[in-house]
Formats: sequence, structure tokens, C-alpha cells
Amino acid sequence: MTQVIVLNGGSSSGKSGIVRCLQAVLPGPWLALGTDTLVDAMPADLRASDAGIEFAPDGEVIVGAEFRTLEAAWIAGVAAMARAGARVVVDEVFLGGADSQRRWQTALHDVRVLWVGVRCDSAVAAGREVARGDRITGMAASQADLVHRGVAYDLEVDTTHAEAMDCARAIAAHVS
Amino acid sequence: MTQVIVLNGGSSSGKSGIVRCLQAVLPGPWLALGTDTLVDAMPADLRASDAGIEFAPDGEVIVGAEFRTLEAAWIAGVAAMARAGARVVVDEVFLGGADSQRRWQTALHDVRVLWVGVRCDSAVAAGREVARGDRITGMAASQADLVHRGVAYDLEVDTTHAEAMDCARAIAAHVS
Amino acid sequence: MTQVIVLNGGSSSGKSGIVRCLQAVLPGPWLALGTDTLVDAMPADLRASDAGIEFAPDGEVIVGAEFRTLEAAWIAGVAAMARAGARVVVDEVFLGGADSQRRWQTALHDVRVLWVGVRCDSAVAAGREVARGDRITGMAASQADLVHRGVAYDLEVDTTHAEAMDCARAIAAHVS
Amino acid sequence: MTQVIVLNGGSSSGKSGIVRCLQAVLPGPWLALGTDTLVDAMPADLRASDAGIEFAPDGEVIVGAEFRTLEAAWIAGVAAMARAGARVVVDEVFLGGADSQRRWQTALHDVRVLWVGVRCDSAVAAGREVARGDRITGMAASQADLVHRGVAYDLEVDTTHAEAMDCARAIAAHVS
Repeated sequence: MTQVIVLNGGSSSGKSGIVRCLQAVLPGPWLALGTDTLVDAMPADLRASDAGIEFAPDGEVIVGAEFRTLEAAWIAGVAAMARAGARVVVDEVFLGGADSQRRWQTALHDVRVLWVGVRCDSAVAAGREVARGDRITGMAASQADLVHRGVAYDLEVDTTHAEAMDCARAIAAHVS
Repeated sequence: MTQVIVLNGGSSSGKSGIVRCLQAVLPGPWLALGTDTLVDAMPADLRASDAGIEFAPDGEVIVGAEFRTLEAAWIAGVAAMARAGARVVVDEVFLGGADSQRRWQTALHDVRVLWVGVRCDSAVAAGREVARGDRITGMAASQADLVHRGVAYDLEVDTTHAEAMDCARAIAAHVS
Repeated sequence: MTQVIVLNGGSSSGKSGIVRCLQAVLPGPWLALGTDTLVDAMPADLRASDAGIEFAPDGEVIVGAEFRTLEAAWIAGVAAMARAGARVVVDEVFLGGADSQRRWQTALHDVRVLWVGVRCDSAVAAGREVARGDRITGMAASQADLVHRGVAYDLEVDTTHAEAMDCARAIAAHVS
Repeated sequence: MTQVIVLNGGSSSGKSGIVRCLQAVLPGPWLALGTDTLVDAMPADLRASDAGIEFAPDGEVIVGAEFRTLEAAWIAGVAAMARAGARVVVDEVFLGGADSQRRWQTALHDVRVLWVGVRCDSAVAAGREVARGDRITGMAASQADLVHRGVAYDLEVDTTHAEAMDCARAIAAHVS
């Protein structure tokens, strides 16, 4: 039985919408947790410091040592939730590409995971970033390809021309 | 000179995204005001009462007498802002169709207005409503056609297959 | 009949809480509009530019020329709403002290207004700023006294030791 | 070393503000997780169903079987984060009083925990609920005493007359 679905994609690629559609179409209740949950749980000063995360003027995100330490504990905890019986959709931004995936793979080594890449054309994602109005300009473009480098997927979806609900249905068909 | 752009469309048709893109692509600063601004300004008890607005279980929205009174003053005020020199994008849901438009036409009779209809296929809008996760299920479907009944436009855009940014550019081309 | 209540106070002085309590305790429906409504209506790029508003690292807020132009139209529009029959609570931050009040006085010259100062001890407001977690650190302290310079009130409330609801009741007693 | 701080109190008792102040005054970074994080992670339909949580018209909260199952996994996961090295402030509403505490005690049996009760006079909490404007009316009053029944604390704070920052400092003094 698929216990965890990990969605990886850049900012404004449409992951959150797919997650909410997945929660609506998958049988049984799934928890939705992700990078945004972790960042919201961090102290305010860590969200804007060298030790935490920093947003460069061009939208690049830089992650510091203290962030990494808390993130490691977070990943261990989410894996423990899955082992304790919860089914979880994880909404992630693999800023470190394959290295980021490895951290999750290690923590989830004994759990059945469906790895999903969420692609979106860089220019389209940049336009959606403007339409959302709550993101730092440039994050969508700078992350669009970066986060997929060296990452292995069971399935990829592309939101450039597909609706979140259609992507969710395609993913749900791979959940056993 | 176009002083006001009125966008009318159902819930989850994509109006807010178009508004933020319009603010980004139009020359000069434009204020964005709309139904959501008015509802947020209302007392909490009016948002859920016979005198104010009520959300039926199927997503239908019912508007009461006290809401109508405040709305009339609101429309007069937004028109006064335009007359005082602000350029304004109004993001509206014409639940009363042609009657709703008439209220704005009367208030804006001496102001140059661009009337824009924002269409979205009902099933697609319903899917986006799930993806957003913050709207009452059913509003998108119940409003998709209703709000356009008898309304006259200078221009219509359809977000079913077009991005918010592309719709904004099409609208901006009609702004003089 | 009091048509408009203008609340003026620094960031984190507790104005918004008082406004919501006023809407609950005052007879009849009152619209709540204010600086936050105006800032939300502005284009994103004006919220962080020399032409719009800028947040200095110490929490000081600097307002530019294009902001002033839109603000003037906004004030004229809110005054028009009051003249059209809506009763309005305006939640303001008079960064320019007496000059800011004069702009509202001019626009509301023929309307009955209750002017209310919302005070809060600077250190207490700074603590509440941390507790809220969504404000730029330093705004509370830098605005606590500044916004009251030269401003004339019908009534002052102090949230340092009083609850929002008690302040609202004290204000409501002055509304005729 | 104190690894986890559990704050328990009713809705609008001021827990979230204390949590943000704790993150600001405690040495080192602490994660803030709680009931709100869990509820946000739940599927939308579980937030309003017999299987999940239900808000009665008087503000009472009823929790269903599927909610309990996900909550058990959530608690196990947060305990695993603490065991993996993260220091965590948990912001909880013990609707089941002593039973709710027991669930956390079991999961955290090998972790050093500081148990903190957050009290607030029921009438004051009800006023703050109105001032916040985003909570269902009645939750504050119905939970004020209920959540403390049979719960054992290392420390209690009362926000009726004390600021969030002062409560946070009092709690921080007990963290080793």
C-alpha cells in the first residue's frame, strides 16, 4: 500500500492545488504536509537569516545550517507519522535536487513511496507567480528546472496545460 | 482615458489572478477593489445572516437588504475614487446579472469604463475550487453562467485554456 | 448622527481588534475600512518602491508620491460612501500626524465624525508585534508616539491595560 | 534538557502569541507545531464531517474517529521529531482533558517535557474571540475550563491580565 506521495516541484508549479485535489479524490483521509508547513513552524528570525533561509533579490532561496538541522528532524517525524499509520502527501521543493531526495529516501526506506515530479514551463510559472501575488518575484523561474536535477520519479505531471484536478487523477491512478 | 475596468465572473473563474496581472502590466498604478473587499469590510454577523449574505449548502449565495444598502454606498464610493483621479480595477460577481451591472453603470455614468466578462468552463472552475481549498464547494458551478445573464461587455476572456497573464495582456490592449 | 468613526494609532496598538468589537456592539451595520484595505488594493510593486511605501529595516514606513495620489482618491471615496448613507469605521495610521488628520477632515467636512486616538505603551506594543508574528519588527515602537503628534481627538482609549471589547464599549458610548 | 514544551489552553486564550514570543526569547531555534497545524493538514471534508471535526453552532468542537487516527500518528511523529533532536513547542487544545494529555505523555515518555497550562478568564477570552474575528463564536467560552479538567502542569500562566511576552518569559525561565 502506498503510504507516502512525495510531490516535488518549483515554486508556483501548482503543487498545493494538486495536493488539495488529491485529498479530495483519494479514498480515505491523507495528511498534507510540506515545505510550507516546516517554514511556518520555524522561528521568525530563522526565516530571514544566514542560519535559516534567505530570499535573494532574484528569488533564489538559500538555506542555512540551523534550517538543515530542523529539517532533518522534521523529515524523521513525517516518516514516523507514516510508519504509525497515517497516509501522507508531502509537498516539497528539492532545492538540492538529488541530495534533497536522498534525505527523504533514507528516512522513508521502509515505507512505500510514490515519487512524483511536478513540472511547469518556466514562463508560465512566472506568470502564475504574478497572478498569486504572494510570492517573491523570481522564485518560480529560478526553481523551475533546478529542483528536478538528478531526481528520480515514478511519475511526472506537467501543469503547463493540465488542470490540478486532472494531475491529481493521474497520480491517484498510481496509488495502490 | 479608461478610468475603471470592471471584471465580472463567477467564483473560481480566475478574476483575482487577472487583476494582479493587470496591476503588473498596465502603465501607472491601479487600485484593485471588489466584492471580496466589500465582504471583508462587513460586520461578521452580516456575513452569515438573512440581512447580509448567506451561503446555501449547494454554494448558492443569497444577499439580503442590509447588504444591498451598504453595497450601494460602496459603489458610490468607488465611483467617487475614480472621479477623484484613481484608476480602479473592480473585481465583481454579478449575482443579479444585468441588474447588478445597472447599479455600476448608474454610478459610473460619467466615467470611462471597460466592461470585461471573465468566463470559465463550469467543470474546470469547479476543479479549481477544490484546488484552492478555501471556497465553499458548489459556488463555482452555481455562478458560472448565472453572473453573465444579460450583461453587456466590451471584451470577454476565457480562463479555461488561457493563463491569467495572457488574459491580462488581452484586456490591457483595450485600455486607452 | 455619527456617520464616521476614525481610529488612529500605531502598528500593533490594537486598532483592528477594536474595530471588529465595534462592529459587534454598535447598533446597525458599520463598514470597516482602513490603511490595510488601501495597501492591499495597491499594486504589489508600489508596496515596495520609492513611489509607494517602503519599510526601512528599523520598521519606519516611508510613503511616496504615487501612494499619496491614490490615498487622496481613496479618502474622497470613503467620504462619498459615508455621504451615500454607509456608516464607516476607519482604521488609520497617521504617519504624518496633524497633516494626515487634515486630509481626512477636509474630505469629511460635512460629515459627523468621532475622532478616536488609540494609545498603547510602546514596549507593550512591541511585545504584541512579536506575538502577532506577521509585522515588521520595529513598526510598533517607531509609530507609537509619532502618529499622535498634533492630532485632536474626541476620545482616547489605551489598550495597554484595557481589552479591545472594553475600548469598543467606551467608544460606542460616544456614538450618537 | 527540556526537549518539548506543551502549551494547553482553550481557543482565544492566547497560546499562539505566547508560542511566537517563546520562539523569540528562547535560546536556539524551536519548532512551533500544534492543533492548528494538524487541522490544516487534514482533508477539507474531514474538517466538517462526522468522521473528522465538527463545529456545533454554540462553538463546541466534536472530534470523530478518523480524526483520532490521524491525530495519533501526528503525535507519534512530533515525538519522533523531538527524539531526532528538534526542540518543539506544541500548541494544544485538550478537548478530552486528562485523556488528551495521556496521549501526549505516552508518546513523549522518554522525552523531557515542560507542561504549561494557559488560562484566560472565560469572558475575556470571549471578547478576544470577537476582536480576532476569525473564530466561531462560542469556542472560547465553551473551552475555557473544559480543556484543563484533570490535566497536570509544571507551570500555569494566565493571559487575563498578562501580556504574551511576559508569559513567554515566565515559561522560558523554567526551560533547562
